[in-house]
Amino acid sequence: MTTKTTTKTIDLVADLGEGFGSWQMGDDDALLEIVSSANIACGFHAGDPLIMDVTVAKCVKKGVALGAHPSFPDLRGFGRYAIDLPAEQVRADVMYQLGALAGFAQYHGARVAHIAPHGKLGNLVAVREDYAEAIAEALYGIDPDLIVMAGLGTMEHAAKSRGMRVALVGNVDRAYLDDGTLVPRGRPGAVLSDPAEIAERAVRLAAEGVVVTTSGAELAVDVDTILVHGDTPEAVETALAVRQGLEDAGIRIAPVGSLEQ
Amino acid sequence: MTTKTTTKTIDLVADLGEGFGSWQMGDDDALLEIVSSANIACGFHAGDPLIMDVTVAKCVKKGVALGAHPSFPDLRGFGRYAIDLPAEQVRADVMYQLGALAGFAQYHGARVAHIAPHGKLGNLVAVREDYAEAIAEALYGIDPDLIVMAGLGTMEHAAKSRGMRVALVGNVDRAYLDDGTLVPRGRPGAVLSDPAEIAERAVRLAAEGVVVTTSGAELAVDVDTILVHGDTPEAVETALAVRQGLEDAGIRIAPVGSLEQ
Amino acid sequence: MTTKTTTKTIDLVADLGEGFGSWQMGDDDALLEIVSSANIACGFHAGDPLIMDVTVAKCVKKGVALGAHPSFPDLRGFGRYAIDLPAEQVRADVMYQLGALAGFAQYHGARVAHIAPHGKLGNLVAVREDYAEAIAEALYGIDPDLIVMAGLGTMEHAAKSRGMRVALVGNVDRAYLDDGTLVPRGRPGAVLSDPAEIAERAVRLAAEGVVVTTSGAELAVDVDTILVHGDTPEAVETALAVRQGLEDAGIRIAPVGSLEQ
Amino acid sequence: MTTKTTTKTIDLVADLGEGFGSWQMGDDDALLEIVSSANIACGFHAGDPLIMDVTVAKCVKKGVALGAHPSFPDLRGFGRYAIDLPAEQVRADVMYQLGALAGFAQYHGARVAHIAPHGKLGNLVAVREDYAEAIAEALYGIDPDLIVMAGLGTMEHAAKSRGMRVALVGNVDRAYLDDGTLVPRGRPGAVLSDPAEIAERAVRLAAEGVVVTTSGAELAVDVDTILVHGDTPEAVETALAVRQGLEDAGIRIAPVGSLEQ
Repeated sequence: MTTKTTTKTIDLVADLGEGFGSWQMGDDDALLEIVSSANIACGFHAGDPLIMDVTVAKCVKKGVALGAHPSFPDLRGFGRYAIDLPAEQVRADVMYQLGALAGFAQYHGARVAHIAPHGKLGNLVAVREDYAEAIAEALYGIDPDLIVMAGLGTMEHAAKSRGMRVALVGNVDRAYLDDGTLVPRGRPGAVLSDPAEIAERAVRLAAEGVVVTTSGAELAVDVDTILVHGDTPEAVETALAVRQGLEDAGIRIAPVGSLEQ
Repeated sequence: MTTKTTTKTIDLVADLGEGFGSWQMGDDDALLEIVSSANIACGFHAGDPLIMDVTVAKCVKKGVALGAHPSFPDLRGFGRYAIDLPAEQVRADVMYQLGALAGFAQYHGARVAHIAPHGKLGNLVAVREDYAEAIAEALYGIDPDLIVMAGLGTMEHAAKSRGMRVALVGNVDRAYLDDGTLVPRGRPGAVLSDPAEIAERAVRLAAEGVVVTTSGAELAVDVDTILVHGDTPEAVETALAVRQGLEDAGIRIAPVGSLEQ
Repeated sequence: MTTKTTTKTIDLVADLGEGFGSWQMGDDDALLEIVSSANIACGFHAGDPLIMDVTVAKCVKKGVALGAHPSFPDLRGFGRYAIDLPAEQVRADVMYQLGALAGFAQYHGARVAHIAPHGKLGNLVAVREDYAEAIAEALYGIDPDLIVMAGLGTMEHAAKSRGMRVALVGNVDRAYLDDGTLVPRGRPGAVLSDPAEIAERAVRLAAEGVVVTTSGAELAVDVDTILVHGDTPEAVETALAVRQGLEDAGIRIAPVGSLEQ
Repeated sequence: MTTKTTTKTIDLVADLGEGFGSWQMGDDDALLEIVSSANIACGFHAGDPLIMDVTVAKCVKKGVALGAHPSFPDLRGFGRYAIDLPAEQVRADVMYQLGALAGFAQYHGARVAHIAPHGKLGNLVAVREDYAEAIAEALYGIDPDLIVMAGLGTMEHAAKSRGMRVALVGNVDRAYLDDGTLVPRGRPGAVLSDPAEIAERAVRLAAEGVVVTTSGAELAVDVDTILVHGDTPEAVETALAVRQGLEDAGIRIAPVGSLEQ
């Protein structure tokens, strides 16, 4: 028996830098005190070069690991709508956004540790093999050490098949069905809002790899990261509760890239 | 006396990848057979991720050195209009574009060798010290080995004061005044069009560092690169004549970054 | 028997103003000598305000009827990719583009006579009832006299059900299957290129309402307009051949809006 | 003596619809209860077609007069930066934005009553005669009854010289110098924040046409409108105080277009 097996670790992640020009979104400064990794908008669904520079600088100062958060080119729709682009275009768009963020990281003496496709692109890479393969091929060619943050699916497979590291993302403010999928937004109870309940779910997920479904069943879920939000004051309060709950349970919070595989 | 002093070298440069989506600009394939370095549009005045990927791939295959060609954010105006942005915004925009191009270069096993601000931004960095200093500071922080391709002026000074290498750009299809400035576009005789005459000027510039002004005076001009164009069939013919003229005169054509300083 | 039945009339239509900033597309000046109506890009897939103003001015001078050619917001993809927007967003986008064009028309003492959704939006309004209904409802509210230029399908139905006039569009450079659909692009023989053959098909279509399918069968097709292109020198030559063929056959060429219903 | 001279009237105006996609700006619903006219963003510095449609619908429902608020094309910079465009481009951009808004107005059974250039464009039309003349020529050609909302300067002159009606805009939350210009932002005391003081200034301006300068002098200022803001809770409180103050002083609040000239 070693201490290694007794200390659980989780990466707390949030989407940052999602304003655009004069418009703001979320409370980045509050989240920077809570999370260990950041998904940083790269200008296609949100973010602009100045916001990216400032956000990267803050992350580096706080020791928050940097992740690219590429999207379909859709500022107006915040990357939420499917655009039926050919895979080679999506691949090039992801390369462009990753490169742009990497320049800021390099300036600030850091590197991009992971990539997490945003919004609808994030949904589609999990099910469209052409997208997943094209993106994984490009990412591997640019930096084989890049960690791919994703759910189960084609993106996960495409990255793993190239020997790339995948960090599985867990949701703690969403209800799960028995088959491991999320209750669709819009249905009653799909989104949880009680900070204490969410924090408790985070602890069980991180400590035991277990999530309780809507039927009351215990589902084994293997995650490396937990996603928190900062769009509203309540969201920040919840994120804080999650962090506090994890710390009280003796779980270490750290960027997934800082851990031994 | 060594052979080193007898062999002159010049970098032939063209702007490439200046289409956007379905729209094309210039004959990149013809120019790729002629030039030693390329200024590649980075999406702000022209170029999109797919065009950038294809252009970088072609350059690497042909041994053409890669340069970033950042612009004000102005697709509609092709980067030709001044936008009175604060220096910190221009700085971040240049970092973003350079990073984006560097990602494609990295994928294709190459690196961005130089940077040459485009259009109106290129004009302004030569006279606005705030822009020049902000950009040079950022470039130095990202890659101190980056070569800054520029005319005389504040950009040149800002780069040199940080110990960065500057490659001076020569124009061979523009008439010069006795004070070394170009005859403004629109005035009679401002733009030369005879391929033979332009090729002859290129040879004198590269071999002797001399340009003949509108008054007939010989002006000493120190340049590292000569810029050629590909917008029209005549432009490609002229570029070919320049290359042939230089080769016939025994002048070596090579990327400025490949030379000893 | 009246002369009315002996004189056939057709509206020759082309897409105009599809450049953007410095980039050009097609030979508008050549097409303006040939067509009776124009689909004018409104800035979402191509076109910018200055191009729109110039294009409207030329159309008015030549007596070419004005049509709005709205698109998904997709300059880079020229409106060719589906964007899965909610119907209310598509509706507002169409209203915006129509209004923008109408302002130029008003300035030049004319009006927008018809509307013809572009590219992928044009495809989708024929099959997505939510898009067709939302757009038709908005168009009717703005101007019930607007003619909807479309193929058979949901857009046609939605317009007709409100009492709006629909002009059916015929393709003369595309092969037809026996079921009246076009042979998909990419298949051998899908696109015709011989000007004489295309002109002959235009005459039969306009004079007899007949198209010969790939199996040799004669298909009855009712069209009010014939679409011609101007992207290449050959395209302009073909458009000219179509016009000449129609005139030689005694068919009158005129905007659909100028005809009695 | 008639009652006409005893009843003062002023148009209370606010900028509305200045969100973009998911991003919001200001509290439009609160302002709609306060103002008599709205400057509506037209998509170039803020606003998108859906926001424009919703904003126009709300204004029509509340009886708030519609105004176009055109800008330089600069979403990222909120139209705050000068872009050195040729006058013919600015003219076409203004026509495009005005037309786009007019389409929504027409749908909702209303019309665009006035136009008020936004941000930096608003500053420049007051001093650049080429811009002012080009815009006034276009506006007159589209709708000679359009009211031009502006400060003193070239835009005012260009509109008046064509017989167009000009509504002069008064600022009540900004300090004035003795020469009638505003104390530049950034200087101490340039921007006033006390609702009671601002409301008092609004009453004197509307009732007496007088503003007190920083030196204590009384300056005669002729205004037709007073601009209020809604970016912050305090701003809405101030706007309410201004409205209440004006009503208490017996001043009528109504769109400038509803008044006899």
